[in-house]
Amino acid sequence: MTKAVVVFSGGQDSTTCLAWALRKFGRVQAITFDYGQRHAAELDAARTIAGKLGVRHRVVDLRGFGQCSESALTRADVEVAAGGGLGGLPSTFTPCRNLVFLTMAAAYAISEGAFDLVTGVCETDYSGYPDCRRRTIDHLQETIALGNDLPGFWIHTPLMFRDKRETVELARDLGILPLLADTHTCYFGRRPACGTCPACILRLRGFAAACVPDPIEYEVSAG
Amino acid sequence: MTKAVVVFSGGQDSTTCLAWALRKFGRVQAITFDYGQRHAAELDAARTIAGKLGVRHRVVDLRGFGQCSESALTRADVEVAAGGGLGGLPSTFTPCRNLVFLTMAAAYAISEGAFDLVTGVCETDYSGYPDCRRRTIDHLQETIALGNDLPGFWIHTPLMFRDKRETVELARDLGILPLLADTHTCYFGRRPACGTCPACILRLRGFAAACVPDPIEYEVSAG
Repeated sequence: MTKAVVVFSGGQDSTTCLAWALRKFGRVQAITFDYGQRHAAELDAARTIAGKLGVRHRVVDLRGFGQCSESALTRADVEVAAGGGLGGLPSTFTPCRNLVFLTMAAAYAISEGAFDLVTGVCETDYSGYPDCRRRTIDHLQETIALGNDLPGFWIHTPLMFRDKRETVELARDLGILPLLADTHTCYFGRRPACGTCPACILRLRGFAAACVPDPIEYEVSAG
Repeated sequence: MTKAVVVFSGGQDSTTCLAWALRKFGRVQAITFDYGQRHAAELDAARTIAGKLGVRHRVVDLRGFGQCSESALTRADVEVAAGGGLGGLPSTFTPCRNLVFLTMAAAYAISEGAFDLVTGVCETDYSGYPDCRRRTIDHLQETIALGNDLPGFWIHTPLMFRDKRETVELARDLGILPLLADTHTCYFGRRPACGTCPACILRLRGFAAACVPDPIEYEVSAG
């Protein structure tokens, strides 16, 4: 029976990916990285949703990643070397973050005998993040296949070319809209969500465009 | 000034790489991963050697990696899915381990404004490890370059096609033989080293073939 591992943050996108994987694969497991998220609520949401879907779920301590990346780029007082290509990237970009998550998730998947990995990365909404592009994912997939002698290893990106509206429509078609009530999006970690931060606005726009009510509560309605 | 980061375990090979990098690059930093090594002495050796070479050194907590990889493949009671390509690999192979180390090290390097990464992986001695082959490293290099919009990112592997004799000769030519007295090789972590485990024997053979005395002490001489 084909077995897949889903990189699962407990957010709207990866919850949709988890439901997508449950339709496509015989057996599905989820992995969540604790990298010192701003809000512990995100990890709680991941545990709650995995439990409701009856999916085996592992939380992996990756707080050490902060020791790698909390460096020059994230400190205004340190000069970044000239000539690097990082100047044009959004200030929220952390070098190699998705690559580290996906490679760690691949280690887990392969150790569990699963050769299909699923991630919610998306070119449409995050075109400024070069590690979210399908071309990068293709190269990573080939690297992992070569590095483990596993030519059949695959990284699935069901949301890659969907915009937020289409992602909400996919969630609706998969019948998991009620489950999205447990997901966290608000940048400030508020519950009810603030409704005014960029993350809340992006989420609300997607639901509005899909003509689907967002099941979470907001302090301020964007509508 | 060109700046490089060396993946540094405190062992013979990565110490030689560190000395090699100090000759080649204007500024050099070292990164060591604490992944729950069998012997704390390895981390101590890394700190000692980095100190003697005056190299900035960061130890990153990666013990969470064990949560990813201590799974089916490392447990005899769990069946590994049929059809995987892992059957032919050595039992000591951990899926994605080098890929995770190198990607984390790349995150650190890029955050520090260093676009050259140095690692001691080697096809000659570890041909059974598919993530030590230059072809895999080439793909990873391209993945990291694409994933960070850094076309100039490079992974250097000075030991890739050297056998143990040639690595000892390189250490001699770099003038760091006395420093190898601080490196740890023994599989059992003994000091004096046991001299009879496969790791000690491989090390002793390299020194013998290069006609160079090994500066560490052994309980039993293989000579």
